[in-house]
Amino acid sequence: MKSTKEKILETGAQIVRRKGFNNTGLNEILKESGVPKGSFYFYFPSKEQFGLELIDVYTSFMEGEMVKVMSDKSESGLQRLKNFFDFTKNMFSQEEYIGGCPLGNLALEMGDVNDNFRKKISEGFMRMESIIYKCLRDSQKAGEISKRIGLKKLSQFILNSWEGALVKMKVEKSIESMNLLEYYIFNKIIK
Amino acid sequence: MKSTKEKILETGAQIVRRKGFNNTGLNEILKESGVPKGSFYFYFPSKEQFGLELIDVYTSFMEGEMVKVMSDKSESGLQRLKNFFDFTKNMFSQEEYIGGCPLGNLALEMGDVNDNFRKKISEGFMRMESIIYKCLRDSQKAGEISKRIGLKKLSQFILNSWEGALVKMKVEKSIESMNLLEYYIFNKIIK
Repeated sequence: MKSTKEKILETGAQIVRRKGFNNTGLNEILKESGVPKGSFYFYFPSKEQFGLELIDVYTSFMEGEMVKVMSDKSESGLQRLKNFFDFTKNMFSQEEYIGGCPLGNLALEMGDVNDNFRKKISEGFMRMESIIYKCLRDSQKAGEISKRIGLKKLSQFILNSWEGALVKMKVEKSIESMNLLEYYIFNKIIK
Repeated sequence: MKSTKEKILETGAQIVRRKGFNNTGLNEILKESGVPKGSFYFYFPSKEQFGLELIDVYTSFMEGEMVKVMSDKSESGLQRLKNFFDFTKNMFSQEEYIGGCPLGNLALEMGDVNDNFRKKISEGFMRMESIIYKCLRDSQKAGEISKRIGLKKLSQFILNSWEGALVKMKVEKSIESMNLLEYYIFNKIIK
């Protein structure tokens, strides 16, 4: 059974991912989760504190999904990276290209206005990068990609460009930007 | 001399780029631009209409800056693309990595919540892509890059990934993500 705090965070995560942090009123979250206002302030001293805990929820979610599709060591590192692209394309098209990466959304919305948000989002990105890095490392060890390729920078580049593909996806409502990224990574950069 | 409408849009553009659309109150814009509330509603029937005209301001600004650094035909196409990267790195570091691309910011903030915003931002991105495309086309004509490279897709990919580098820049407050993108484009993709 979910705790009240979990209920608030889970409901808030869904609404904020779609509407943005500043555009989401606490009343909307409370109404949707069926929690009285007093309870909210029992768990979160401020909307900012709530937002910071949302970033943890988002990071754990993204990390969990990535690990799920990228940790099967019976598959090659590159195959696992491909699985990640397949997974994201399926997920985003099923969601009709709404939502995107909650950390990327918050980065652009809050990165300049709240330094606590900024730092926490940056850590979230690093955790996502390290999952990509592990795939690439296994791939390099197995000789799938050249030993001369610097994997730390490559995993950063892949995540950055993945976030960029999602910026475009939000306005085109199409998976084309993700297909493009996948093409350049597998056909031009890693080969 | 600037018209009242221009004053409102210019002041609004600066504040919204830094704080986001929903996070910016009309009062703040009016106070900063020294314009009474009645005048605002004379020029803009709603905050939405104001936002849509802001997108035009942003698109013209980005387009203007890009054309400025990328249209000198005495330089090669690739050199002009490099100039664009130099320009963005200079601009963003001078601004201490605050602001970023106003269209990218609005794409993530508003792309899911307002369809008029979404369409207009998408058009803005296309206009930016077409400037990159022209550089690449000149470059290909001059034999700098292979005839086999599809330029339309490549210019889309460059813009998407440029937007992604700016997502990362906002939280890292560093130009590293832009350096990475530049490296992969010039050393791996175009060559």
